[in-house]
Amino acid sequence: MKIGVLGGTGTEGKGLALRFARAGAEILIGSRSAERAEACARQYAALAGTAAIRGLENSRMLAEADIVFLTVPWEDACAAVHSARDFLRAGQVIVDVTVPVRFRNRRAEYVDVEEGSNAERIARHVPDGVGLVAAFKTEPAELLADLDQKLDCDVFVASDSETAKGAVIEAVRSLQDPRPVDAGPLSASRTLERMTVLAINLNRRYRRKGARFRIPGI
Amino acid sequence: MKIGVLGGTGTEGKGLALRFARAGAEILIGSRSAERAEACARQYAALAGTAAIRGLENSRMLAEADIVFLTVPWEDACAAVHSARDFLRAGQVIVDVTVPVRFRNRRAEYVDVEEGSNAERIARHVPDGVGLVAAFKTEPAELLADLDQKLDCDVFVASDSETAKGAVIEAVRSLQDPRPVDAGPLSASRTLERMTVLAINLNRRYRRKGARFRIPGI
Repeated sequence: MKIGVLGGTGTEGKGLALRFARAGAEILIGSRSAERAEACARQYAALAGTAAIRGLENSRMLAEADIVFLTVPWEDACAAVHSARDFLRAGQVIVDVTVPVRFRNRRAEYVDVEEGSNAERIARHVPDGVGLVAAFKTEPAELLADLDQKLDCDVFVASDSETAKGAVIEAVRSLQDPRPVDAGPLSASRTLERMTVLAINLNRRYRRKGARFRIPGI
Repeated sequence: MKIGVLGGTGTEGKGLALRFARAGAEILIGSRSAERAEACARQYAALAGTAAIRGLENSRMLAEADIVFLTVPWEDACAAVHSARDFLRAGQVIVDVTVPVRFRNRRAEYVDVEEGSNAERIARHVPDGVGLVAAFKTEPAELLADLDQKLDCDVFVASDSETAKGAVIEAVRSLQDPRPVDAGPLSASRTLERMTVLAINLNRRYRRKGARFRIPGI
């Protein structure tokens, strides 16, 4: 399986790249600059201890990847998908990990989105035939990027496409840790995105960095 | 500490009464009918193995209780607080556990509330000086009411009154299990109430009954 990371040079993209690489997937780091992508890929390959991480200019990454993680800042996600449109193909899967958040007096606030969630806003820009999945919204990026840390939490996976959701759940399962949980339709993102804001504020209040979610009972 | 339960004859009220009674609190079951409250109290006292559960007509329960759990159906919560207004006093704490949910094709849906959450809607009816706290929104009532079950989860406690929130966090801590977590201001209920709807749908999807939340990392 080829996993692309659009915005792969940030912390969230790094964590996903490292963890999927370690689980045996082939990773394609995408960036507007091929040079920057290649430099990142070399660095990640050393960290993950595998050669199966390559850096490519975005359009070439999109042409190859089966599952593309969208790890750009939340405000840029729609524009990024819009720019990617011409390079996407039917059957491909895009995974949105973004959370619309702003800070006021150091407190995180959810930014209300007209469509209900950022995932649903992004959905408007995804071409027919391409599956949009929300996942990894509630995992702290810093924790994800630290391979020494066990995540010991649940990754909520939401989509209106059962096929695309199934592919992402399978991919997450290959990581062993964390555990994938089917969170239902894409609109579940309204809850998942808010949960991240809650976790950010819990980190601040309890002076920690790793607040995340686990569901006992399932 | 005297804990009152307004709507104490339902499953959620039963679970709270049993667990706080077992932890040593004095429990006052409130109902519109004193007889019904007394019958419930006798039944709960037998289950919890303590005599410290009494049944009272609502107004008398409200006159005595320090912390009052509001465990009526979510649609009735505002009216219940409105009816209780004249019996509440400054320094008392009301704990809202309700979640605005409806079912469509067996799927749970969050009912959007103009104020942002049911807790915030209820806040409009609470007299000055009385603290409103949201808590126990994400715990399954059936699980709460089964004393043989370890909850092994987190109780999110949210309020705009730090004093009232502190009192509820202390009360939850006395239970030993589950763990109280300070979830911030009352508006955090927008997230907490949606999380319950997510948990209900996870139960349906995974054919379980006990989906709830735990925060690793804090």
